[in-house]
Parts: sequence; structure tokens; C-alpha cells
Amino acid sequence: MTELMNRLAALAEVTDGDGLTRLFLSPAHRRATAVVAGWMREAGLDAHVDAIGNVVGRNAVAGPRLILGSHIDTVRNAGWYDGNYGVLAAIEAVGRCQDLAFGVEVIAFGDEEGVRFPKTLSGSRAIAGIFDTAALESRDKDGITMAGALRAFGGDPESVASVARDAGQILGYVELHIEQGPVLEAKNLPAGIVTAIAGASRYQVSVTGAAGHAGTVPMAMRRDALAAASECFLAVEAAARGRPGVVATVGAVAVRPGAPNSIPGEVAFSIDLRAPEDAARLAAGEAIEGAIAGIGAARGQDIRVAKTHDAPATACAPWLQGQLARAVQGSGVTPFYLPSGAGHDAMAVAALCPVGMLFIRCAGGVSHTPAESISAEDAEMGVRILVSFLQNFVPEPKNV
Amino acid sequence: MTELMNRLAALAEVTDGDGLTRLFLSPAHRRATAVVAGWMREAGLDAHVDAIGNVVGRNAVAGPRLILGSHIDTVRNAGWYDGNYGVLAAIEAVGRCQDLAFGVEVIAFGDEEGVRFPKTLSGSRAIAGIFDTAALESRDKDGITMAGALRAFGGDPESVASVARDAGQILGYVELHIEQGPVLEAKNLPAGIVTAIAGASRYQVSVTGAAGHAGTVPMAMRRDALAAASECFLAVEAAARGRPGVVATVGAVAVRPGAPNSIPGEVAFSIDLRAPEDAARLAAGEAIEGAIAGIGAARGQDIRVAKTHDAPATACAPWLQGQLARAVQGSGVTPFYLPSGAGHDAMAVAALCPVGMLFIRCAGGVSHTPAESISAEDAEMGVRILVSFLQNFVPEPKNV
Repeated sequence: MTELMNRLAALAEVTDGDGLTRLFLSPAHRRATAVVAGWMREAGLDAHVDAIGNVVGRNAVAGPRLILGSHIDTVRNAGWYDGNYGVLAAIEAVGRCQDLAFGVEVIAFGDEEGVRFPKTLSGSRAIAGIFDTAALESRDKDGITMAGALRAFGGDPESVASVARDAGQILGYVELHIEQGPVLEAKNLPAGIVTAIAGASRYQVSVTGAAGHAGTVPMAMRRDALAAASECFLAVEAAARGRPGVVATVGAVAVRPGAPNSIPGEVAFSIDLRAPEDAARLAAGEAIEGAIAGIGAARGQDIRVAKTHDAPATACAPWLQGQLARAVQGSGVTPFYLPSGAGHDAMAVAALCPVGMLFIRCAGGVSHTPAESISAEDAEMGVRILVSFLQNFVPEPKNV
Repeated sequence: MTELMNRLAALAEVTDGDGLTRLFLSPAHRRATAVVAGWMREAGLDAHVDAIGNVVGRNAVAGPRLILGSHIDTVRNAGWYDGNYGVLAAIEAVGRCQDLAFGVEVIAFGDEEGVRFPKTLSGSRAIAGIFDTAALESRDKDGITMAGALRAFGGDPESVASVARDAGQILGYVELHIEQGPVLEAKNLPAGIVTAIAGASRYQVSVTGAAGHAGTVPMAMRRDALAAASECFLAVEAAARGRPGVVATVGAVAVRPGAPNSIPGEVAFSIDLRAPEDAARLAAGEAIEGAIAGIGAARGQDIRVAKTHDAPATACAPWLQGQLARAVQGSGVTPFYLPSGAGHDAMAVAALCPVGMLFIRCAGGVSHTPAESISAEDAEMGVRILVSFLQNFVPEPKNV
């Protein structure tokens, strides 16, 4: 077993429950910051925990810096690699690059998952200078405010603004992360270059037909809400299938009254729509809304569509993609580009500086469960690609 | 308000809970048998409660008898008219026909709804001689056996077989019932002649695709169980729409994991399929099973279909339909024929003798809720039709 895999296993032991559960500002998170800071110091970095709970490790080179990082908070009963891999791979890579001519810092963000508080990306937002201090008053399920939890953790809610970086001093941000999807495995590739983090729209749809007895209402007199909803589900699928890069999902469905001998009178469902290009996502959303309106009209049913969330895509900087691709190729891997359908700290850091991401293959595309898995070989390949990237890194040519 | 409507309101007061809840062999059922027996006696009938809890009232004419009836048990929080109307309308009609030359008995069955025990039609099955005595050992949710409840009620589990009628002594069975559907209201008719009680097939279907993250799995790599299920839902609808008289319903649906950001990996759903003609129902079932197999094959998903229930249709005797139609016409109403999609005591009694049914219009097709409603005029029209039927009744011409 490699040292990196050993460290990932050791970090997975830092938990507050059965399996791996390490929520933002929890006791396990506090213990993990000490473990990670220790490994940063072994890699030659000067490490500290900042006011919002990020672990920050810097090399000794002055001047503008490249940031590497990911997160060490987890979902409940998590896998070992989501976030943690990117942090430990960055520490390992920097440790192998003691002679870099530019400043590097590795950050282990503390709140990517957004599980404890109804906020997310708190650590990376603070670094990027877009942390909304109102979030400090948000509460977890026990009524504890983020400010209170941060104080108990050893952080300083009054000083969060001070962790924001000066954009002029940051060269870029590069994050390694497990793919959490099945594409690299299907392509038989250990790693891939991320083109963009998908923008996302979410909708809540309610279909109102007419409930009735399954035996006594002739077909011609029915307004079956599930039949109308079924056409909507297929329209959602068709809108995404017809547009490259777009994915759309109906994941949550409630059918009422929900008895075998009752015609459904109401169906409520969610739509999750994502794409690396905003224009494609918005076009798919319009196509879906248009199709749903037509279905409601044709079936004489009232279908209401509410957009509950709308976030634009985050493009990865082409020059960082290019340098990552050269590092991938230099490591003997065919460069392959793919979007990220899941969110990452890079979305927040993009407000500060150009961002790039490298995905590592994970088994079966499975994540957010203890079954999450990567191979030691792929984990090492990610480190080697990052080392190659660092050794050949050239800051963005400004105003070319 | 008519006497009949007053009696229906009074009988609705005989309940064990808020609203009308009168389960088989319950205290309310016991009290209701006394009330109904009293009204039978007022109508000139000799009344008693039999060994299985049916209230039976007979006129004084010897020889073969015509049975009229319906049920006085209810669902929980029931409407006032389901079952009860047919019993009280029969008592009212027989009370107006003191000069009949043939034997008549009115029966108030006690277990049409099958709510208390996992058995149904106990009273009508006993009369028909098809009561399975093993049902006496079935238990309600408190662990009380039907035999124990029957003893506490004043019945006699050892004597249930004795209530079975001799087929040679029964001329037929006629039941009035509220439609529990919207057809008569849509036709602007107070009553209709039932052609058959629909046969019913029930299926439980499970679709197994592949769960995944809504953002990270490209459309072409998905095996979305809800998308496959949606095509099944529409195939169920299409199979019924294409076959006159057939109705098919997907009423209960479970989508797993059921989160907005998860591709559904499993969908389980029910199919309820009914038709007054068994051949049409079986053909629709085959069409549905064929369509589902094709959907599973096309989408690479495992779809399992289990038939959980299969009951043939009960045809109403043409000669009874004809005599009911003449009574309808004689009462100034255009004869209209419709099937019954819901089950009734007549299904069990059909094992004993020819059966006929007359439906009375109910508001909005609504039943099994306190909103169930019929007009006093329609209630009276049902009685008038039954009186006309009785006054002109001619036993089935045998071996013509």
C-alpha cells in the first residue's frame, strides 16, 4: 500500500460516528485539521488553521501563489476519497517538489458538503472573499449557530473577512477530485481534465388531475395525474438527450393518494437540470417548460412549474486545462476532457482566480457511500500528473 | 326530507367513531342490525340476525324466494349511502308491495368492505354456500379472530354453514347500490342497469435500473428506472384506452432512492386492471405485459411483473337486466346499461343464483368519504324502480 493510500485510510479514522462522518466544525473536523497540518509540515509547508477553519499550508517562496486544494469535511457515512483525496494528493505532490520557483499553498477547505448548516462552500467562499457573514447566524439541527460552532472549534467569526486572498497575489487554483461519475471508468482512463463545473437549474413541478376509483371511472373520463406526469418525465429525458452535455433527472416523485385502487389526482416531482454550457442548460429548461405546458393543455390538467434554484456554470480556465493536459500526456495518459456535474470548492474560488480541475477515476462512479473506491495506482497517477503540472507550471500570460 | 333519507341519516348515526365507521361484527354493527331488523318488521317482514351476522327479513309467502339486499358494514370515515342505501331501499320497496305472490327476503350483509379482517364478502358468501370456514380463524389488527368476534356479536361460528340457501329455492338476487362512479351523472340519468361486475387483475411491477448522481452520469450511460417506468405507465393507459370497457390504473408508485439529485435506480408500482368482459381484460393484461417486456429490453433494465390477484367478471343475468330495464322505462327513465368497476355482494351471491344490480347516481362519482352524496329524488326513483320490478317480476323461464 502506498503512503498516500495509508494516509487516506488513517484520515478516514478521524470521524464522529460509525463509518466516516466529519461535518464542518465538528470534533472530528478539529482533529482532522491537526492531522492534515502535521502532514503539510512533513511536506515542508508552513501550516495553520485559519479563522473559518481551513487548514492552510504554504511553501517558503514569496510572491504570487498557486493554490491547490479540496475539502476534508464529508457527508454522513461517507466514502474515504471525496475531497480528502484532493487534499492529500496536493500535499504529496508539493512534498515531491521542494524546488519550485513560485509560491504554492495547499488548502484543506472545511465546508464543501454543506451538510451541517444550510450553507455550503463556507471555507472556499471566505478565501475568495465572497463569504456572506450572515451565514454565521445560520443554525445546525441542534440550534447551534455557525459563529458559535466556529468559536468552539477555535476559529474566529469576527476575522473571517481577513482570510480573503488578494486576487493580485494568486496565480490560480487547481483541485484534484474523484470523478464521482462513471465516465473515466467507461473510457478506461485514470484521469481526466475538467472543462467546467456544470451550471444547475432545479424545478419543483405539481400536476393536478382528478382522483377517482380505479374501477368506476371510464378511461375517457379520467384526468390521471400520473399519466400526465409520465409524459413530463419522458419530456425531461428527451430534452437532455437531444443536447450534448446536458443531463436532466426526475429524482423525487410523490403520487397522491397513492393507493393501488385510486386514480392519481396529484403528482409532485423534482427536475434537476445541469450542463457545462449555460446556453444549453437554459435552452433545455425552456424546452422542458414548453413540453410540460403542452402536456397540461392536451390532458386538461393544471401543471405548475417553479424554478427553485439556478446557478451558472463555472468554466475552467483554458490555459490551466492546457497545462493540465500536457501534464496528463507527459504522464503517459491520453488527455480526455469532461465536465463536472457535481459542485466543488473550485466554483467558489473561481470568484478569486482562474481555476482548473483534474478528475481521478472512481469505481462504478459511486460516491457519498462507504463503497466509494479508487485504486492505489490511480491515486498515484493523480499525484504524478500534479507533480508534472507543478514542475512545468507557467503563470497565465496576461494581456497577450 | 323523505322517510328513506331520514332513515339513511339515522343509520349513519350508528357508528363506532367520528363520522361513520361501522366494521363487521363491531358494536356499531350489532346496534345497526337491531335498527335494520326493526325497520324490516315495520315493512311486514319476519326478521332475524343469522349465524354470520346478516340481518334477514322474509315476507310470509312460501316457496321459492327472490333475495334483495346489500351491506350495512362500512369503510372507516365512510359515506352514508354505500351499501346502506341498497338495504333501506329494498326494505322500503318491499314495504310498499304487501301483495306479492312470491317469496321475498331482504338481507343486510355484514362484511362487504373487508376492512376489519383480511377477508371480504363473508355474509354473502355464507348465504351462497361458498364461505370458507378457515376465514373464522383470520384475525383483526388487535388479534381477535373472526370466530371470537362473531361469538361476542351474538353469532355462531359453528352454524355458519347452516345459513347457506338451497339454490332450488332461490329465484334470484337483486341489489341496488350507489354507482360510486361518475357515469350516470355525466349521462344525466338517476339510475342505470348493471351489465356485469368487472373482473379484476392486479399486478406488482418492479423496475431495476441503475441509481447514480444526477450531475455526473451522462444521459447515454443512464439506466433511469423512472424513465423506463414512465413508458410502462403510458403503456398501461394505452392498453385500456384501446379496449372498450377496460380500465387500467397505476395508483401506487415508489421511486428509490427518491432524492432530487439521484437518478432513480428502482421503481415499484401497482397495476389495477378491470373489465366487464374477461377476454378483454386478459387481452389488455397480455398487451401490458408484452409492452413492459419490450420497454425493459429496449432500456436494458430488469422489469419483473407479478400478478397478485385475478378474479373473473360476474355477469348480471340477462333476464334480470331485462326486467330491471322494463321497470326503469316504466318509471319514466331511459334504460342505460353500465358495468360495475367496484366489487359488490352480488359477486358472491352469483355462486347461488342469477344476480341483477341497479345503480343510483351519486354526486361526482365520489364514495368512501363523508362527501358521498345522493339526492332524495334519485333515492326515491330507485325505490320506485324496484317496486315496479317486484310488481312485474316473472321468475326465470327454465329450459326454454
